[in-house]
Amino acid sequence: MPVPSDARIDIERFWTTIERSAEIGPGRPGGLSRLAASDSDKEVRDQFVAWCREAGLSVRVDGIGNIFARRSGTEESLPPVVMGSHLDTQFNGGRFDGIAGVLAGLEVCRTLDALGHRTRRPIEVVNWTNEEGARFSPPMVGSGAFTGAYALDWARGRTDEDGKTIGAELARIGYLGEMEDKPHAFDAYFEFHIEQGPILDREGMQLGVVTGGFPSTGMLVEFKGETAHTGPWPMERRKNALLAGARFLVAVDDLGWDHAGSGGKATAARLVAWPNKPGILSDWAQAVGDVRHPDPVTSEVMAERMRRAAFEAAAKADCGVEILDIWKWGGRIFAQELIDQVRDSAAALGYRHMDILSQAGHDAYYIARHAPATMIFAPCQGGITHNNGELCTREDLEPGLNVLLQCVLERADR
Amino acid sequence: MPVPSDARIDIERFWTTIERSAEIGPGRPGGLSRLAASDSDKEVRDQFVAWCREAGLSVRVDGIGNIFARRSGTEESLPPVVMGSHLDTQFNGGRFDGIAGVLAGLEVCRTLDALGHRTRRPIEVVNWTNEEGARFSPPMVGSGAFTGAYALDWARGRTDEDGKTIGAELARIGYLGEMEDKPHAFDAYFEFHIEQGPILDREGMQLGVVTGGFPSTGMLVEFKGETAHTGPWPMERRKNALLAGARFLVAVDDLGWDHAGSGGKATAARLVAWPNKPGILSDWAQAVGDVRHPDPVTSEVMAERMRRAAFEAAAKADCGVEILDIWKWGGRIFAQELIDQVRDSAAALGYRHMDILSQAGHDAYYIARHAPATMIFAPCQGGITHNNGELCTREDLEPGLNVLLQCVLERADR
Repeated sequence: MPVPSDARIDIERFWTTIERSAEIGPGRPGGLSRLAASDSDKEVRDQFVAWCREAGLSVRVDGIGNIFARRSGTEESLPPVVMGSHLDTQFNGGRFDGIAGVLAGLEVCRTLDALGHRTRRPIEVVNWTNEEGARFSPPMVGSGAFTGAYALDWARGRTDEDGKTIGAELARIGYLGEMEDKPHAFDAYFEFHIEQGPILDREGMQLGVVTGGFPSTGMLVEFKGETAHTGPWPMERRKNALLAGARFLVAVDDLGWDHAGSGGKATAARLVAWPNKPGILSDWAQAVGDVRHPDPVTSEVMAERMRRAAFEAAAKADCGVEILDIWKWGGRIFAQELIDQVRDSAAALGYRHMDILSQAGHDAYYIARHAPATMIFAPCQGGITHNNGELCTREDLEPGLNVLLQCVLERADR
Repeated sequence: MPVPSDARIDIERFWTTIERSAEIGPGRPGGLSRLAASDSDKEVRDQFVAWCREAGLSVRVDGIGNIFARRSGTEESLPPVVMGSHLDTQFNGGRFDGIAGVLAGLEVCRTLDALGHRTRRPIEVVNWTNEEGARFSPPMVGSGAFTGAYALDWARGRTDEDGKTIGAELARIGYLGEMEDKPHAFDAYFEFHIEQGPILDREGMQLGVVTGGFPSTGMLVEFKGETAHTGPWPMERRKNALLAGARFLVAVDDLGWDHAGSGGKATAARLVAWPNKPGILSDWAQAVGDVRHPDPVTSEVMAERMRRAAFEAAAKADCGVEILDIWKWGGRIFAQELIDQVRDSAAALGYRHMDILSQAGHDAYYIARHAPATMIFAPCQGGITHNNGELCTREDLEPGLNVLLQCVLERADR
């Protein structure tokens, strides 16, 4: 039985689901602070699993806590069409970032139930573990481990600031299952997400057709110096690792301004040092910076300048330096057939839409290595995100959800 | 019975005492990490009290944990001559900084016992609580509270990074006594201390006659911004408090270099931020900087430039800024009569000596508001301190100890 092309998701049902999720792990007013593998992550996972079971989905948890909720198809042997994102948040996060993408998948399944429609291919809804990287670094560790970008033992061994590991914390909250020998094939992966930037809102668009991601580079740099007294120790003999880190962050920010005119961005993201106390120079520091630019060549130039800035900062503070990690993401990684499908569907439904590059990292970036993948962006008010002021209305979300529904149906029934 | 002017301390006995202390609270190889009001602070206090009782001293603990060990005089109603410093260390501290000054007082008392000499005035040896400010901020909180610079309740309420207060921690280790209604008068205060700088060692001097301290200013600055996503958020809308703090620290360091040619120093000492994580801009940061210069006018110019640097850093990062605290120390605060006495005694004993300014803060700075006070510096190898490489030999310490003995005897018997 084909589904009528006027099938639509139920925005009120979706909204009620979002609001229930927003009661779990409250942060600052209106926002959430629902860190990966915490008690509140357990609570929202339990709620999500309960909703999935009510919708007749079968639930499986893998070896890094990713939850797969499956709606069977008429041909169960075919690879599923998959939707997903993440239910964890930043320390000062909002109620839509990631969450809307997981609950969108649930809403698509509920809509199909209401229509009494069983697709040819199975459908899966996924919650990826620790996308934010707020409690455990790196971010997107669940999708990264699923696709083999991270070894499972390494991923499970990532620690929070109290030294607790992801693996132990997932086991504690009851969400550590078995990893597949080989990740199961996806027919396609669609990730619905808020834009996390001001463009769609400013341009009055109802959704964004995500054609790729800003080519981006992040860098973890370690500086080593010597402790000494802050008073008598001569300037020319100081090896203050905290200062080296501060000089690096300032250089990264300057780099962002140098390229801001053409859309570049750079972030002075993190700095920790030891002992980091008045009265003593620090002998150790770690800093994290990142650079992003829509043009791949310029993005590489920025990354190289950031690398040099680390060495220059170390030299100025007479410290040793080591780049402990460099990670790159973004580029033209999404499947053209899915991008075109999203654009065509938005046009067919009469929604104002535009092509857009993602500027943030997403689980879809890893999944794109595993299967044809793309993303659908919804506008968010003022582009505010990673902040309790993050805000979307029903009207902001509904068009993207309906495009998601149509795309998943087409893929799953073909 | 007058004491012969050839009375000398017993350097081997003193050295054994230093070595026993250096077994308590071990840090990195050769160094100590004996934080105020910790278990190891309790252990060294217990050992110090035991030594004092063996030497016939009566021990009293005040309301902020300062330990006063008293050797009676023939005229007990006269104010005591006091020696002291601190037994706590930095996270990566040495075995002499502060410790040598407390144990020097004990050694003077032991020497008088060996001579069978009772002075006219009483003598007291003091261990001041939390001089370093490593665990609890601010530094010198024991001597500050004793002299009334800090209200007792405020001082007791200072917290470490786990939220534990000095007062509760002192009570836990058994060193919280009663405060005097009014701090008892001192006839004079002598603090023996290692220089914590390279000058005496470089110049081949056996001791330093401390004529005052570098006029110095420290500043605690708070920056407030907004959390946002590090990716899509436009450069021109970012309010990254971590970046404001980093810009402040870099400006403070630059200021130190601007004045280094005339002996100035500036320190980028501390920076903390929240959430201080990859993926999110920080909305809060606190930074500590300090400036020091031997010339009072230049020192004030540096302090004003540091203050402006805070506002400029905030403006560049589009953050709010508040200077939460400014503290000043140093200057010509010591008693001329005691300075002259130290110099004369060093000359009479035939030691190579020079006048010197202290560049670090010391308990003597607060005590100088309460009584005539001065300091005697011993050289330390290479000037290394606040580092486990801190090193003195018996020969570095013996001359200053003998000058201390002579000065205390003269004062106490006059």
